[in-house]
Amino acid sequence: MNIDGKFTTRLLDRDRATIARAISVVEAGGDAAYRLLDSIHARTGRAYRVGITGPPGAGKSTLAGEVTRTLRQAGHSVAIIAVDPTSPFTSGALLGDRVRMADLDNDENVFIRSMATRGTGGGLGASTADVADIFDAAGFDYIFVESAGVGQTELDVRHLVDTTVVVLVPEAGDQIQAAKAGLMEIADIFVMNKCDRPGSSTAMQSLQSAASFRNHGDSQWQTGVIETAATESRGTAELVEEILRHKAWLRATGRQRGLLHKRAEQRLQRRISEAVDNRVWSAENRQYLANALAQVMAGELSQDSVVREICARIKLPDKCDE
Amino acid sequence: MNIDGKFTTRLLDRDRATIARAISVVEAGGDAAYRLLDSIHARTGRAYRVGITGPPGAGKSTLAGEVTRTLRQAGHSVAIIAVDPTSPFTSGALLGDRVRMADLDNDENVFIRSMATRGTGGGLGASTADVADIFDAAGFDYIFVESAGVGQTELDVRHLVDTTVVVLVPEAGDQIQAAKAGLMEIADIFVMNKCDRPGSSTAMQSLQSAASFRNHGDSQWQTGVIETAATESRGTAELVEEILRHKAWLRATGRQRGLLHKRAEQRLQRRISEAVDNRVWSAENRQYLANALAQVMAGELSQDSVVREICARIKLPDKCDE
Repeated sequence: MNIDGKFTTRLLDRDRATIARAISVVEAGGDAAYRLLDSIHARTGRAYRVGITGPPGAGKSTLAGEVTRTLRQAGHSVAIIAVDPTSPFTSGALLGDRVRMADLDNDENVFIRSMATRGTGGGLGASTADVADIFDAAGFDYIFVESAGVGQTELDVRHLVDTTVVVLVPEAGDQIQAAKAGLMEIADIFVMNKCDRPGSSTAMQSLQSAASFRNHGDSQWQTGVIETAATESRGTAELVEEILRHKAWLRATGRQRGLLHKRAEQRLQRRISEAVDNRVWSAENRQYLANALAQVMAGELSQDSVVREICARIKLPDKCDE
Repeated sequence: MNIDGKFTTRLLDRDRATIARAISVVEAGGDAAYRLLDSIHARTGRAYRVGITGPPGAGKSTLAGEVTRTLRQAGHSVAIIAVDPTSPFTSGALLGDRVRMADLDNDENVFIRSMATRGTGGGLGASTADVADIFDAAGFDYIFVESAGVGQTELDVRHLVDTTVVVLVPEAGDQIQAAKAGLMEIADIFVMNKCDRPGSSTAMQSLQSAASFRNHGDSQWQTGVIETAATESRGTAELVEEILRHKAWLRATGRQRGLLHKRAEQRLQRRISEAVDNRVWSAENRQYLANALAQVMAGELSQDSVVREICARIKLPDKCDE
């Protein structure tokens, strides 16, 4: 594809076909992706990014849909990046949620994009941040990253967004709370979804007590807990208000700029790592390693000499294993 | 420390103080760790490695203790590497389990070592594999890696061991099953622990049906489901038998050698990555990057030129971002 000035102009004009093509380019990675990202870089940094995460079946997609409708009524444009887990155990449930969001697909100020996770671990693909940049450059006011993964995905999302919303449900109670200890640490806002179900008040108490552990110090963000029943739109307005309150807090305290800086740093580091890895793990070096490994396993070659050989091949200065 | 022939001899003689010092050396990493690992390399590859993983509170430590007692009665020596999550939500429960294992601490053919996870995500520290190598070289017959983490830890363990045992409990039912979809894919053996609790038979059915999805083809390992009640030692003998059955299957099918090869490969790759990373992210380069990042954010410098500069600094051949 020819990523010229015209393409960039159409992207900034929020042309849907151009956005879709741009996403394909960054997902494919490589030089073309970097050229595209460099060309839109100056236009990013205006959108507000919100992560919605939590265990499968917590109703994240439905909630994202409700919040989107509320923001649309206030005149804002919204992009949703839904990161699906690869596991067949959860994709069925997600599909149902997707169908419920169909009305949003007909709104030209809403763009929903599904993305695959990387591997069974469910880590967010590196390109999730890049896709968010495309929506940012295209002028979307809010970008939601919905990660319905297991484990790492949920924790990764924090680094991509300004506000992290963690969605839980009453049923699983303490068991889930414990299993999701990692989630506790990344939440800016907790949502107890499906709050009309049995066990809700006990679960709310335990969630509020978990949140209160983190709320100490006047200069700290006070993590709120919102009760919602997304299928009946209950609590959606309160959640939107809480997101906007966190947004205002980040700007007032100057932390928003810190988040932008952190994201730019991570992106640069990732790009450097990719460039270096491409050279270190070249086809030629991989072939050398396959042979060397057999010798290492037979005790004929030390790991150390293999490391030195690779370092010599990519011309690292001095000895490189100290 | 002086890692000389004497040190290695004491390690191979299973001297407890020497083992403890060796573990500290590999945990600290760097050149000394690699010298030590190279010196014991020829003595590794005999121990059988078993991962025990599952959600917090599933009773993994107690189960590991029971299995260890059974293996001890058969005359085998056992090392246990317990990888604790950093989260305060789960460490309390684990502490209780640790206390219950106190009797094993007085057995000189048992060695229990706790290790920290890396970061909130709970990834297994790179040195977990190295610590297993130390126990292997010291002549322990069985090495258990108990990972009580959230998310990534549970999935990482598969790469370190020969047999992966996934422990679940009845209470959480389908919710946990779905949340733990990633666990389903890595299990060689499922354990339904605390099978005396309510909801056990329903949970067993759903677990057996999950396992049956994976059991197709004669050449495939048939994933078994074992019911245990670890605090009363119920099902422990069956679990040990199933572990030995998997061990025999791996050897009979030649897959054991494939696992050894895979682990050696990952170790070599990790060591090369560390050596390269040390050069790429040197103090000098980090200083350059901090300055460059400000210019990138101000739009005065492209990411691309920063990547090229770093590549030039470590003397990668040709252009390195294609």
